[in-house]
Amino acid sequence: MKVFLFDCDGVLWHGNTLLHKIVDTLDMLRSKGKQIVFVTNNSTKSRRAYKKKLDSLGIPAEVDEIFGSAYSSAVYIKRVVKLPADKKVYVIGESGIEEELESEGVRYFGGTDPEERKVMQEEDYTNFVPDPEVGVVLCGLDNHINYRKYAKAFQYLQDPNTLFLATNVDSTFPNKGKLFPGAGSISAPLSYMSKRVPISLGKPSQAMMDAVEGKFQFDRKRTCMVGDRIDTDIKFGIAGGLGGTLAVLTGVATEEDILNAGPEGAPDAYLDKLSDLLR
Amino acid sequence: MKVFLFDCDGVLWHGNTLLHKIVDTLDMLRSKGKQIVFVTNNSTKSRRAYKKKLDSLGIPAEVDEIFGSAYSSAVYIKRVVKLPADKKVYVIGESGIEEELESEGVRYFGGTDPEERKVMQEEDYTNFVPDPEVGVVLCGLDNHINYRKYAKAFQYLQDPNTLFLATNVDSTFPNKGKLFPGAGSISAPLSYMSKRVPISLGKPSQAMMDAVEGKFQFDRKRTCMVGDRIDTDIKFGIAGGLGGTLAVLTGVATEEDILNAGPEGAPDAYLDKLSDLLR
Repeated sequence: MKVFLFDCDGVLWHGNTLLHKIVDTLDMLRSKGKQIVFVTNNSTKSRRAYKKKLDSLGIPAEVDEIFGSAYSSAVYIKRVVKLPADKKVYVIGESGIEEELESEGVRYFGGTDPEERKVMQEEDYTNFVPDPEVGVVLCGLDNHINYRKYAKAFQYLQDPNTLFLATNVDSTFPNKGKLFPGAGSISAPLSYMSKRVPISLGKPSQAMMDAVEGKFQFDRKRTCMVGDRIDTDIKFGIAGGLGGTLAVLTGVATEEDILNAGPEGAPDAYLDKLSDLLR
Repeated sequence: MKVFLFDCDGVLWHGNTLLHKIVDTLDMLRSKGKQIVFVTNNSTKSRRAYKKKLDSLGIPAEVDEIFGSAYSSAVYIKRVVKLPADKKVYVIGESGIEEELESEGVRYFGGTDPEERKVMQEEDYTNFVPDPEVGVVLCGLDNHINYRKYAKAFQYLQDPNTLFLATNVDSTFPNKGKLFPGAGSISAPLSYMSKRVPISLGKPSQAMMDAVEGKFQFDRKRTCMVGDRIDTDIKFGIAGGLGGTLAVLTGVATEEDILNAGPEGAPDAYLDKLSDLLR
């Protein structure tokens, strides 16, 4: 294996706590000439903001080693969809999405604009004028989700020419030992209203794998996906035809989950913890 | 037929405009001794508030002739579920739900409480303490929906003993000629997260029919459902085993829809407009 794609939470850290000897393990891999990519479905942070998180935990990393679902979405819109320059994106989500769209030179509106956070008033129902430049609705995790955003996105999604994208479709996301609504829950009303399923740019969607490959040009057969979840990380690696998949037991999946995953869904190998690679 | 259950929008009015000779038609039915019940999935208004809407359009009506999905939910919780007095309801929705829960003496919190409308802060993730008295999560249309409410409702719904109710599950609701998110879209994230399907207390759910019957004690075989939608109103009447179903073409369904509805789904009769009953 030449390239290691790492899921982060549950593999490298829990919340704000670094797991056992993670820095040593990554150093060891780097010293052997392995390329490291941090692959995360977290869309609220841009790669730049994510690097700060890695810095704060003491993990050496470059911005270019980070691949989040917000960046994945921006790359997909710019390089795969090739959204025309006269079109733009209506964003439901936080600043991570905005920063990554900017980094790829994609025009957008919505997002963290304070106007979007206002309660919908009676006149807003009447006065809504759709912007003919909208070509994409992109929905990610949004701590400021509200009725206005859903109403607005739905007006655009009724046009079948408007592309419907989601940074990822995780139903929940873990925080401080509890589960909270994930990006897929935020986009659920849009799916329910429009009877459309968004293209997901997060794991396990292969649209994300295509975006990662588009950026890093790696050899899939010499690439290994490392993660703590069978249904996202390991599935992502297997569906992508990677050379290897490695599960760790420091996150969501238990040894039982792995043994019950069946020949189609099980990782090639699993470890109690990532730092067992040091042995 | 002795009893007529009327859907309202698209049958009696459009938005704030009364349809042709509606008052005369209802007068005629009343003069023949027919009982009238206005059945609506709108949960944002209590029966009392809905009577004001009827008053403003010049339709004579009593509060007791009105049956909305907020009231339906309150009746269901009180008389069908028989929620114990030491249990309460966590409400996502507007004042219509609160007023109807109060009218049935059901304890609740959430709803229009200004604390519920605040943006979720980092400490809220840590500090959430579930209220052990919660026995029901009830979700209706909520113009002030936000991340905090979803996060909170989800904590309760992870307990399988917490009942999951929705005032109705309409994906959209029409306003000023456009479609906006309906109550079913508001509850969609809760279904997606919890992998649970709410019991709906609105048309076409038979839980609503049971609640209507619980209140009015009518003879189903001498009751006719009148509506403009095949998939909610007419379905509601047919599934409820009512003596008759009557569609009108002043709302959503077209003549073609009715002719294509098939023997299982078609109404017993249809009219261009309700006032054709006067002829």
